[in-house]
Amino acid sequence: TGTLHTDTRPAVTGDLAARLRAVRAATVALVADLTPEDCGAQSMPDASPAKWHLAHTTWFFETFVLDGPRPPFHALFNSYYQALGRPFARDRRGLLTRPALAEVLDWRTSVDARLDRLLADAAAPAIASPGTAPRHAGPDATLPRPPATPEVANRLALVELGLRHEEQHQELIVTDVKHLLFQNPLLPAWKPAPPWAANRSALPARPPRRWIARPAGLARIGHDGHGFAFDNEGPSHRVFLEAHELASHCTTAGEFLAFVEAGGYDDPRWWLAEGWDLARRADWRHPLYWLPPGMQTETGCANSVGRPHAGWREFTLHGARPLDLDAPVCHLSYYEADAYARWAGARLPTEAEWEAAARADPAAFADLEGAVWQWTASAYAPYPGYQPAAGAVGEYNGKFMVGQQVLRGGSVVTPPGHVNSSYRNFFPASARWQFSGLRLARNSAN
Amino acid sequence: TGTLHTDTRPAVTGDLAARLRAVRAATVALVADLTPEDCGAQSMPDASPAKWHLAHTTWFFETFVLDGPRPPFHALFNSYYQALGRPFARDRRGLLTRPALAEVLDWRTSVDARLDRLLADAAAPAIASPGTAPRHAGPDATLPRPPATPEVANRLALVELGLRHEEQHQELIVTDVKHLLFQNPLLPAWKPAPPWAANRSALPARPPRRWIARPAGLARIGHDGHGFAFDNEGPSHRVFLEAHELASHCTTAGEFLAFVEAGGYDDPRWWLAEGWDLARRADWRHPLYWLPPGMQTETGCANSVGRPHAGWREFTLHGARPLDLDAPVCHLSYYEADAYARWAGARLPTEAEWEAAARADPAAFADLEGAVWQWTASAYAPYPGYQPAAGAVGEYNGKFMVGQQVLRGGSVVTPPGHVNSSYRNFFPASARWQFSGLRLARNSAN
Amino acid sequence: TGTLHTDTRPAVTGDLAARLRAVRAATVALVADLTPEDCGAQSMPDASPAKWHLAHTTWFFETFVLDGPRPPFHALFNSYYQALGRPFARDRRGLLTRPALAEVLDWRTSVDARLDRLLADAAAPAIASPGTAPRHAGPDATLPRPPATPEVANRLALVELGLRHEEQHQELIVTDVKHLLFQNPLLPAWKPAPPWAANRSALPARPPRRWIARPAGLARIGHDGHGFAFDNEGPSHRVFLEAHELASHCTTAGEFLAFVEAGGYDDPRWWLAEGWDLARRADWRHPLYWLPPGMQTETGCANSVGRPHAGWREFTLHGARPLDLDAPVCHLSYYEADAYARWAGARLPTEAEWEAAARADPAAFADLEGAVWQWTASAYAPYPGYQPAAGAVGEYNGKFMVGQQVLRGGSVVTPPGHVNSSYRNFFPASARWQFSGLRLARNSAN
Amino acid sequence: TGTLHTDTRPAVTGDLAARLRAVRAATVALVADLTPEDCGAQSMPDASPAKWHLAHTTWFFETFVLDGPRPPFHALFNSYYQALGRPFARDRRGLLTRPALAEVLDWRTSVDARLDRLLADAAAPAIASPGTAPRHAGPDATLPRPPATPEVANRLALVELGLRHEEQHQELIVTDVKHLLFQNPLLPAWKPAPPWAANRSALPARPPRRWIARPAGLARIGHDGHGFAFDNEGPSHRVFLEAHELASHCTTAGEFLAFVEAGGYDDPRWWLAEGWDLARRADWRHPLYWLPPGMQTETGCANSVGRPHAGWREFTLHGARPLDLDAPVCHLSYYEADAYARWAGARLPTEAEWEAAARADPAAFADLEGAVWQWTASAYAPYPGYQPAAGAVGEYNGKFMVGQQVLRGGSVVTPPGHVNSSYRNFFPASARWQFSGLRLARNSAN
Ligand SMILES: [Fe+3]
Ligand SMILES: [Fe+3]
Ligand SMILES: [Fe+3]
Ligand SMILES: [Fe+3]
Repeated sequence: TGTLHTDTRPAVTGDLAARLRAVRAATVALVADLTPEDCGAQSMPDASPAKWHLAHTTWFFETFVLDGPRPPFHALFNSYYQALGRPFARDRRGLLTRPALAEVLDWRTSVDARLDRLLADAAAPAIASPGTAPRHAGPDATLPRPPATPEVANRLALVELGLRHEEQHQELIVTDVKHLLFQNPLLPAWKPAPPWAANRSALPARPPRRWIARPAGLARIGHDGHGFAFDNEGPSHRVFLEAHELASHCTTAGEFLAFVEAGGYDDPRWWLAEGWDLARRADWRHPLYWLPPGMQTETGCANSVGRPHAGWREFTLHGARPLDLDAPVCHLSYYEADAYARWAGARLPTEAEWEAAARADPAAFADLEGAVWQWTASAYAPYPGYQPAAGAVGEYNGKFMVGQQVLRGGSVVTPPGHVNSSYRNFFPASARWQFSGLRLARNSAN
Repeated sequence: TGTLHTDTRPAVTGDLAARLRAVRAATVALVADLTPEDCGAQSMPDASPAKWHLAHTTWFFETFVLDGPRPPFHALFNSYYQALGRPFARDRRGLLTRPALAEVLDWRTSVDARLDRLLADAAAPAIASPGTAPRHAGPDATLPRPPATPEVANRLALVELGLRHEEQHQELIVTDVKHLLFQNPLLPAWKPAPPWAANRSALPARPPRRWIARPAGLARIGHDGHGFAFDNEGPSHRVFLEAHELASHCTTAGEFLAFVEAGGYDDPRWWLAEGWDLARRADWRHPLYWLPPGMQTETGCANSVGRPHAGWREFTLHGARPLDLDAPVCHLSYYEADAYARWAGARLPTEAEWEAAARADPAAFADLEGAVWQWTASAYAPYPGYQPAAGAVGEYNGKFMVGQQVLRGGSVVTPPGHVNSSYRNFFPASARWQFSGLRLARNSAN
Repeated sequence: TGTLHTDTRPAVTGDLAARLRAVRAATVALVADLTPEDCGAQSMPDASPAKWHLAHTTWFFETFVLDGPRPPFHALFNSYYQALGRPFARDRRGLLTRPALAEVLDWRTSVDARLDRLLADAAAPAIASPGTAPRHAGPDATLPRPPATPEVANRLALVELGLRHEEQHQELIVTDVKHLLFQNPLLPAWKPAPPWAANRSALPARPPRRWIARPAGLARIGHDGHGFAFDNEGPSHRVFLEAHELASHCTTAGEFLAFVEAGGYDDPRWWLAEGWDLARRADWRHPLYWLPPGMQTETGCANSVGRPHAGWREFTLHGARPLDLDAPVCHLSYYEADAYARWAGARLPTEAEWEAAARADPAAFADLEGAVWQWTASAYAPYPGYQPAAGAVGEYNGKFMVGQQVLRGGSVVTPPGHVNSSYRNFFPASARWQFSGLRLARNSAN
Repeated sequence: TGTLHTDTRPAVTGDLAARLRAVRAATVALVADLTPEDCGAQSMPDASPAKWHLAHTTWFFETFVLDGPRPPFHALFNSYYQALGRPFARDRRGLLTRPALAEVLDWRTSVDARLDRLLADAAAPAIASPGTAPRHAGPDATLPRPPATPEVANRLALVELGLRHEEQHQELIVTDVKHLLFQNPLLPAWKPAPPWAANRSALPARPPRRWIARPAGLARIGHDGHGFAFDNEGPSHRVFLEAHELASHCTTAGEFLAFVEAGGYDDPRWWLAEGWDLARRADWRHPLYWLPPGMQTETGCANSVGRPHAGWREFTLHGARPLDLDAPVCHLSYYEADAYARWAGARLPTEAEWEAAARADPAAFADLEGAVWQWTASAYAPYPGYQPAAGAVGEYNGKFMVGQQVLRGGSVVTPPGHVNSSYRNFFPASARWQFSGLRLARNSAN
């Protein structure tokens, strides 16, 4: 699955207004091939309609950057910011047929114009050199030092945050629409078939998989405050790591298929109790979107490059395709990733192990970014000294620091440049509809 | 709430092809003011998206009249005919974003053309005199006797059935879209505000409500087989009725409001146990769509004619409106209708009482047809000697003869001419989203 | 399954006090072989613990006959009488570990003593000639005419009602404990193995099954007011019945097995839609308590008389037993009874058909009473002119007159003498844990 | 709430057989005041009947120490060891009325005798000096060195594990029965009223609460392998801790009441999103078992010592009591503990912070053990190098290392001596029915 994103953004150090225009346009471009129905439906409580994402990201700018909460849309598109009033029920977003898609796009245009004006007003030379804010993290990271008043600086920081927020929702549009289309027995394609060969030849050549040793010792992880980061990425702090080894690549579909074919889904030895129970209840027998040999579907299956496995197919954004055994395995829950690792005599890395390795020796690893999100053994929790931003926007990340696992690395549908080595994604252990796979780790023999 | 239907149909005794074209066009006209999202969303398992109704009625013709079950749409738009294969899950119809609304409309056009050809081929003079079939009921009721082969006759009967089926779904489109729009905090209107005064002056003048005595004795009810009827309307048969009285009118919103304001929803004396429990659980405090005084909504409320009650409003197809106290009360569950009747010292009529009165003395009653569906005390059950049609189409009515209550009379959103005095509508006692009210009955003092 | 009841009651026309003592003692005797745990657990929301039944029947006397609602037990053992305050949640009765079984039995003793005193006080000679009340039905049926004041007469009528109520709960104790024991993988027996042969030889010899014709015409059904009846049995009234035929016997397990083995549970043609969906969801493949050949259980299976089918067993009050093919099939839902009838080319009788036949020609039928409850095609509804008793006790029957089907006839676990030809039992169509079977009916060919 | 446990065990270093006898007897003594119904009922899926605990702990010895899985009880009392076959459904344990309590106690006696014999056979002198095993952790920790064969050694280690396992279930019996009794509107007491004053004067005098500074640096946590430990307590390993401060005491009920009265349960600012949603849904307004002023209950409320708050009561093992404001607050979910900490301008400690402090400076802290379990900010996860035991017994702890939070310290109902500074308890963040409270932490100002 090649990326859906057209990266038309100026360099990261470029002009904020231009970057903003590019990101906003990319979101709209993303849904160009979808019908209003595709954009309106909600396949499960965890997913949102694409139209809702288009509106919510706009609400974010209107609410935090421009005017504060405003009727009538505030009542519909606040996601979870309790400080701003009771949000509309998350599991009913698919019922918001009004405003229509066209109205939402009009709203976007109007907000974009207001943002443009705001940025033009905010001392133009000042915002030409963003990203130099010395202090850690968060909203104020892109502030130019000298001229901006604190109020203006804060606004600009919130624009930057809104831009990053919009990028996050771009990925969610892809994951949510993919999940939606999969509910249809016709297994419809979002996009026409891509030039697979071209896409794959663009992938870096893969050296054979190997274990890379990492020594025991103190490491420093977390964002250091230079340039933009979400608040949950900091503060930078020390952790002690025991000696361990990390796989040079993410686990591939072919490797995971061996687990499936060895009866891995039927053997409780490999599974955490909670995962075993869920897998029974939901009748999981392979990763989400895999189509086992012999499964009847309404659609055919085009040829592909790569090494397809006789019979297995997978549902992709381009419809059903032969399973590509060399690609990183994807759409796993934490439970499946963890079970696989145990079966393979290994384990999942902690997020500290992952980040320390990615900082110290990025050249040694493949699939570090942009392949699949990699489940880590770490529960999502605040770093020592963590402080959410003040006010409603502080609900962005900090409210979710229990009951979820951290994922690292970014996926093929993460907007380019969105992720760095301190970026922390997080989902419940049961989530499968993200582009989530794994990288193995193991303790060093001693 | 004025009717949404434009009755452009030729006279009932007219040409079948012309009637079919008119009905099919009316369905499409019905959704003309809706967006694709409005047509695609499903507000609850009991309701279906308008697009689904548009497709399902087309599937009905394709499957039963033209070709039999055909991929790819058969897998999506079979409602419940088990004999034709496992239907797509009813509660997930809102997830079928493909085919898009435009594709469904194209499909309709293509099926309409094939139906036109079929009817043209089927001896034109023969079908000029429908409605003369002597035998009871069902699909074959409109058959011309002499020329048509049995195969052709059966096809034509199925066309007639498909037409009536389509009319039923027209009403469901209205009820289901109304329910959907009500889920939106903005309480959007489907239709622009109607000329209320004009509509209301068109209603027959109401004499004061009175009790009409009905004597004890044998009565004959059920369809006698002349002209079209659904199979569940027959056979005609005798019932013995004790002496009783029926109200000359349906209960009005104003009368029902007295029950609400007397604490009727808080007093278990009036309620069946099942209804009481449900009303507690679902926090029912008034009929569905009523908006109590002081309730905050995003929308204003236009003036109205009639006698509005200070403060109470109701959600209509035209948005929130002052509650019209003189209109028949509507959107009641059976439990509420029954509780009201008990509070009023009366009861609901049986369907035999209703039908016998409507046949014997229609002039004595108002609101007999086209006002609100009237809950009866009768559970939906087969009449003595009932036989469903052979084959899959026999699943149309007979499969549902348990656990539901019969409603009689038709509503403002029932297509004109669709209902007669033997027509049996049926819904679970908990259903509120139909245009359902009540007429009182009571035992004769003796 | 022989009866569990020891009928030690004096003749029905005998002394009320003696009858009361006998019935109260029979309830306690019923649970003599059960442990306190057996008496305390609740297997599903529809069932109640035996201890709860023991307490609730006592509460009934205390509340309606003696003192009115009294703390502390009123808060626990009111079943559903909303007029007396909010009952304890029905589905949580198994959590009421206090009062302990022993305390409940003590309470029973104390209430029995108070009832004894009450009856002794109420003019002894007067109550020696009960059952002569001329008026219809209900509480006052057993009143002696001359001496009793209305207040005393009403008390005595409530004693009679309490006695009949207690008999109803005796049957429920059996059905609920049977269901409870079946949840245990050990399939424990309630009672030691019975002398099967003896029991069976006591059954009346069965003539071959045949159809008994019943003519069209007016019939009178409903209780006429002589002697005790529950309020829902009256008033007596006329119904018109079309000509039909009734089976001379109830359907047997062997006959039903033919349906099972013919794939009846896998063929939607026979099933009402609601039943088909439930049967899929709950994976019904045969009547409740049947154990298919090859099913592993922890327990053995003693020999039996009768004609056992190779391999099929059933769970009984005496543990797992070979399925007796000649016994009436039992533990069917309405859906299964109805599906069987349709498969057999017949239908279920209405309750009016059943009662008219039982009154007119009882000698022609076997299994009329005391075999299995027989599902009828009639929904439970009030008879014309029905009036529940005044006050809280009026909630006894009338509150449930929607959404249930009527059963007629009584079962092997119904207390002897409890049922007559106007007795109306009622349960939801999904209920299987009662001793419920069927008798076939069919329309007369004409 | 004084302890329920009678600590009749010989010194920890004493004779294994004697310790075993004492622990087994203590379990039986625990339920002496309960009825069979009290022991049989299950108040929620997370809790188990006391009888089930009595049986399951016995099953543990029979299965892991004596004979392996054996019919008939293995099918009933396996908790979650998938390697031994599919366990009986956890949420239906209350339906296992057979075996009766008396049979379970008989089974206990028989297993105790077999264990006694086993221990007598296993070289008596050898087992006189347990606790000297040099290697880390787990089952083999109590092995005597010289004489025991590995097979015998392993058995003895499993006896020790079974003993500790039994102690864990002793606490669960208390928590589960307390929860059960609370479901009863009568709020019955388990135990007669205790001599409160005596109990309280036995508590160590409390110095005023203060913050205790803890420096940044490497710390070693985890069990070092000397003496018994559960496998999840090791291996010992290093962690880096930033400078922080810990409260000298657990938070008291009085302190928590200030949060309640300040509207803490109505203010989303303090709550994690998941907790806020659950608190709304479940209508939490104070800790579990607290009874607000004015709440009607059937029971009175005896006097108490300590500082009761006007009006607030709490449900205890002795019935409803005035809330003791000086006792540690108890029966909190993680969400409530975390919300309180945020409101108080602090946070919860990590388990590493807790353990490092408890090891380094136990004298500085009150309530370290035996007061309330203290929620930590740490998700339950394996320590670096963690290896579960081989075979089925390895499912004991390792299977649950996702989705739960660690608690430290032990409670008033934890058996004396059961907990040490490396002990890790774990429950889902939503759990309230354990004796769970909190100790505050905060980052050092720098
Ligand atoms: Fe967002
Ligand atoms: Fe239809
Ligand atoms: Fe009762
Ligand atoms: Fe255990």
